[in-house]
Amino acid sequence: MKIGLLGHGVVGSGVAAIIDANKTWEVEEVSVKKILVKSEAEKNDPRCTTDVNEILDDPDIDIVVECMGGLEPAHTFVKRALANGKYAVTSNKKMLAAYCEDLFEEARKHGVTIHYEAACGGGIPWMASLDRTRRVDDIQSFRGIFNGTTNYILSKMKEEGSDFDVMLKEAQKLGYAERDPSDDIDGYDVRSKVALSVVKAFDDLVDVNAISTYGIRNIKPFDLQYAASIGRTVKLIGMAENFGTSVSAFVIPSFVRDEDLFAAVPLNFNIIESRSETLGAAAFYGQGAGSLPTAHAVVQNVIDIVKNQDPEINEKTSRPVNNALHEGTFYVRTDKTNLFSSVIDHPINEHAFITRRIPLSRLDEIVRRTDDPLLFAAEADA
Amino acid sequence: MKIGLLGHGVVGSGVAAIIDANKTWEVEEVSVKKILVKSEAEKNDPRCTTDVNEILDDPDIDIVVECMGGLEPAHTFVKRALANGKYAVTSNKKMLAAYCEDLFEEARKHGVTIHYEAACGGGIPWMASLDRTRRVDDIQSFRGIFNGTTNYILSKMKEEGSDFDVMLKEAQKLGYAERDPSDDIDGYDVRSKVALSVVKAFDDLVDVNAISTYGIRNIKPFDLQYAASIGRTVKLIGMAENFGTSVSAFVIPSFVRDEDLFAAVPLNFNIIESRSETLGAAAFYGQGAGSLPTAHAVVQNVIDIVKNQDPEINEKTSRPVNNALHEGTFYVRTDKTNLFSSVIDHPINEHAFITRRIPLSRLDEIVRRTDDPLLFAAEADA
Repeated sequence: MKIGLLGHGVVGSGVAAIIDANKTWEVEEVSVKKILVKSEAEKNDPRCTTDVNEILDDPDIDIVVECMGGLEPAHTFVKRALANGKYAVTSNKKMLAAYCEDLFEEARKHGVTIHYEAACGGGIPWMASLDRTRRVDDIQSFRGIFNGTTNYILSKMKEEGSDFDVMLKEAQKLGYAERDPSDDIDGYDVRSKVALSVVKAFDDLVDVNAISTYGIRNIKPFDLQYAASIGRTVKLIGMAENFGTSVSAFVIPSFVRDEDLFAAVPLNFNIIESRSETLGAAAFYGQGAGSLPTAHAVVQNVIDIVKNQDPEINEKTSRPVNNALHEGTFYVRTDKTNLFSSVIDHPINEHAFITRRIPLSRLDEIVRRTDDPLLFAAEADA
Repeated sequence: MKIGLLGHGVVGSGVAAIIDANKTWEVEEVSVKKILVKSEAEKNDPRCTTDVNEILDDPDIDIVVECMGGLEPAHTFVKRALANGKYAVTSNKKMLAAYCEDLFEEARKHGVTIHYEAACGGGIPWMASLDRTRRVDDIQSFRGIFNGTTNYILSKMKEEGSDFDVMLKEAQKLGYAERDPSDDIDGYDVRSKVALSVVKAFDDLVDVNAISTYGIRNIKPFDLQYAASIGRTVKLIGMAENFGTSVSAFVIPSFVRDEDLFAAVPLNFNIIESRSETLGAAAFYGQGAGSLPTAHAVVQNVIDIVKNQDPEINEKTSRPVNNALHEGTFYVRTDKTNLFSSVIDHPINEHAFITRRIPLSRLDEIVRRTDDPLLFAAEADA
């Protein structure tokens, strides 16, 4: 089968390199025919073109692999590829989470499929494992450390007792964080991954904007020290649970028990765990980013298409996110503690406290009302 | 497809329960037709029989699932099933590791396959992940905490500073360890799992008896304390590495760095990690035993057969195990330190020392010559 590659950056060039190397008989079944680049200057391969139509309108190309990033024109290009009866593979979590309904519907209409292993957890075979587990079990819930940048910052803050800003700068210097780090540190990157994991785990769509999202932008060494004093480690967790007619889904820094394996996940590594009836808890650990691991996941999806595996073609409906169903106790640090008086269980100091057991939706509501740009919230008993 | 189930114990009854429950369309494709039990008294299901021929000679049965345990008659029954053109699934690591060559050859001869996900890591989709990774990459090496019993004992010894015998008794009381615990604590259970993982990872057979095997029977709190003093945690590790014409393969207690995720694997959990060129390190974590997780893995293999996935039918040759290729520094505690004088790098006390960097085969050789039934050896820099 022939592939048209959209994007020749970190992931795209890895995909071309793996496929060109032809190391296994499965990989030998496919070849990259054309590669879309942005400008003449980027044409470093005879297959490069700056005209996307040369790929989308080429009847010889069966699979379009999108590694461009960004919402547009990635979304439009993938949609046109599907409309032209081409299979799609994407590593672009943000785009796919935002246009999930639109693209899955388009794929179904044209009898093709869209694959997104690399959009979530880099090379970790998370989506494949969900597919496999679901052959026998319903998935009850999943949770994960889905973002390497924030895990790096949190690990180093714990280890060195240093400030958030210092560690963010270090992560940027090491290439773990973008120049505009907001997607990572405000939890939006994890939010996209949770939305896509819901599709795979529960076989239904959710509105990505309905996922409660708390980041680590405002975290201070004090918060980590308090967590440590009660035997906990702070990790940014994405989680969802299946409640039948609705799901809970959220991203929130969480005080994970020190004896939980999640507490030991170092540096920029990821871990994701599913729970299901007969398999129980099963977790997958690895580097959640990087050119070759992510490209590996893309190529695995290409082989899934060749082998006609994972033919996720059934119609998907949207399920509401209802975070009234997720109850917990929460750690909050804010200058406006008075607005939380109805839910405080015990104060830690003037500005920080633990709530009584409340629904997450109740926390969302008070936090919104508080409107404190420096507020930090975490699940206290994760 | 119709299944004949050999054995109705912990795993077998779990398999029947999952298949009978018919929770997914994939599981609905199969049904258990007959179940072999040992005696009339065990016939607690109308499908039970004490006559194995009713299963092996029934042309209506496509798949034989062996969950009996033990070498014989399990081996003979599986071989006859294969000879009769039936697919086989087994959870019996000891039997399959011992008769690997015989059974793979028999399967190939009759155009069927033998599947063994449940033989290694219980419910952890380790074999499936190796299969998947190998579609793109060669596996370079793997290492794992493959045995829950010994990990439980080591975890509790570290936590509580207690003696091996005390913790072994506790593990037996909790049902984690057998009454005769030798297979677990002497490393033979892990050895079988390493042999089977080699088949899947490197696509070749190894002689299970050639795998260097060190257990934890002689471990003392002193050994754990010494490891802790240099920032290490003792774990029983099974490992193999692909060197092309030969492989290294061994089981040995290892001083794992405290910051390595493996050090944090608690209680009776398992973790297994593969390394390959483009995916890098990918690890899988879960409960390595238990009725339903192990049965889940068996049922996954049954579905693999129905879907004609993982059709591992290619001829396998034997590759020699050569542990001269694995070099390390080793911790040894013995009353006969004098026999090790040529390899000691520095003594810890009168009876314990660290070797200089030597091939594992050299350690094997000296340990054999030493013939100290109370010797404890570990890899010091794992």
